[in-house]
Amino acid sequence: MKINPKDYRVPPGEKVDLTRWPTHIKPVYRSKKAYHKFLENQVGELIELQRLLYATNRYSVLLIFQAMDAAGKDGAIAHVMSGVNPQGCQVFSFKHPSAAELDHDFLWRTTAALPERGRIGIFNRSYYEEVLIARVHPAIFAAERLPDPPTNPKRLWRERYESIVDLEKHLNRNGTRIIKLFLHLSKEEQRKRFLERIDGPDKNWKFSMADVEERKHWSAYMEAYEACLGATSIREAPWHVVPADDKKNARLIISEIVLEAFNDLKMTRPKATPARQAELRAIRARLTR
Amino acid sequence: MKINPKDYRVPPGEKVDLTRWPTHIKPVYRSKKAYHKFLENQVGELIELQRLLYATNRYSVLLIFQAMDAAGKDGAIAHVMSGVNPQGCQVFSFKHPSAAELDHDFLWRTTAALPERGRIGIFNRSYYEEVLIARVHPAIFAAERLPDPPTNPKRLWRERYESIVDLEKHLNRNGTRIIKLFLHLSKEEQRKRFLERIDGPDKNWKFSMADVEERKHWSAYMEAYEACLGATSIREAPWHVVPADDKKNARLIISEIVLEAFNDLKMTRPKATPARQAELRAIRARLTR
Repeated sequence: MKINPKDYRVPPGEKVDLTRWPTHIKPVYRSKKAYHKFLENQVGELIELQRLLYATNRYSVLLIFQAMDAAGKDGAIAHVMSGVNPQGCQVFSFKHPSAAELDHDFLWRTTAALPERGRIGIFNRSYYEEVLIARVHPAIFAAERLPDPPTNPKRLWRERYESIVDLEKHLNRNGTRIIKLFLHLSKEEQRKRFLERIDGPDKNWKFSMADVEERKHWSAYMEAYEACLGATSIREAPWHVVPADDKKNARLIISEIVLEAFNDLKMTRPKATPARQAELRAIRARLTR
Repeated sequence: MKINPKDYRVPPGEKVDLTRWPTHIKPVYRSKKAYHKFLENQVGELIELQRLLYATNRYSVLLIFQAMDAAGKDGAIAHVMSGVNPQGCQVFSFKHPSAAELDHDFLWRTTAALPERGRIGIFNRSYYEEVLIARVHPAIFAAERLPDPPTNPKRLWRERYESIVDLEKHLNRNGTRIIKLFLHLSKEEQRKRFLERIDGPDKNWKFSMADVEERKHWSAYMEAYEACLGATSIREAPWHVVPADDKKNARLIISEIVLEAFNDLKMTRPKATPARQAELRAIRARLTR
């Protein structure tokens, strides 16, 4: 099984046309069994690397998931990250902002949730909503009470991209590695999954009429994603477009992207110096006396 | 009494030589009585503007105070801001960072303290400490566990200035007006005030040997301030160098700088539309029936 994360990465500065990025590709696994075995290996490797991240205590890793509804964000998080020590990994979902959050700039509420050194943070949706749903539904701005209402929307988006890119470069310089994942789903596959949700008793709580209403804005969302991915895929924090019509395939690809990012950190387990070794020997002697 | 805030403003892009910025100037007030009267007027105007800020609920104002010890930051905050409704104004002092704060990037801990729309926030010291005391005492970096230890200190400071400037531009775009005040004290005046603290029973809690030790690093601090003021005085958030050897004078100058910033916001009290006026009349009718 060969997955090359680079195949899914948006090159910095490149214009993005999502019709040219597939939502479905030939599966990287041959069978359901092979999928499970491969994923298990990947998760095992990730668990090891997370321990190393924790021991090194110098970097943090932030995964950002963005996607249309039913693209499989929750499932990907569950399957790729399960097994990782929860003390070293926190997931935050960002839904409707609170009144206190609306009273601050649009990057404020996610800051408190940024991962500490040695830890993994996962944003299930993120500040990117501010250039996606906010772009599709301009009414959202009224609630944000911006000092300069968007008379020139183009400038507004450009400035928001700038704020985001500046923040991510700052975080990168200070030890946070950001991995951005867009789960790319087709409109037809979303329709199928919505129907499954309606029919499946364990999933129909996840569904409302509003979700179907949003399908009307599909092409506006795709335009918003294209503009966003093109403007904010930077060397320090690139975007990945993951074909998401096949959930299993998406999970394997995501796991490989995550592992690559961890391996790029070139972490080494802190070695005990001779002085420290002597100290440890002395402690042992005392405990066993 | 004529105070022009521009006289104290560091022009963006200008190299700063603090020996050319006075710590003492001819007082702008003629007598102690005139000082009190003037300050009272200034505070009264500020109280009015703060109410308007609160009612408009679109901007927030952030005052950042930086200075050497005993320059009068606490006194300036007390005298210039007293009378403002505390519900609309919060002061945060930033001292030694906590373990949780050290586990994040250097801009993280101040973010939670940023003022909400309609409010004034005051930072008594701030993230600027990270390019001031941290520059004078490089040992501080060890605790910060940066991914790239400062093998090239010049690059490190440049990148920190960049992070700060990017943040302040972002905040400005999103409605926060930042007023930065450096209280410029002479080394001799500091010595006098330290002696007063030792002798004054109500002030000697404010004093320790470590404060005196820091005087050895005076010129290193001045260099750090010069580099910082020059690199981070931007149009969106300019620095002001306030002569601080005369506390009263400094307070009047600060009050004028703050008032100017408020007046620049061009806020207008929200007007009731004809529809709203009709609604209010209906409510009145019901309450008085």
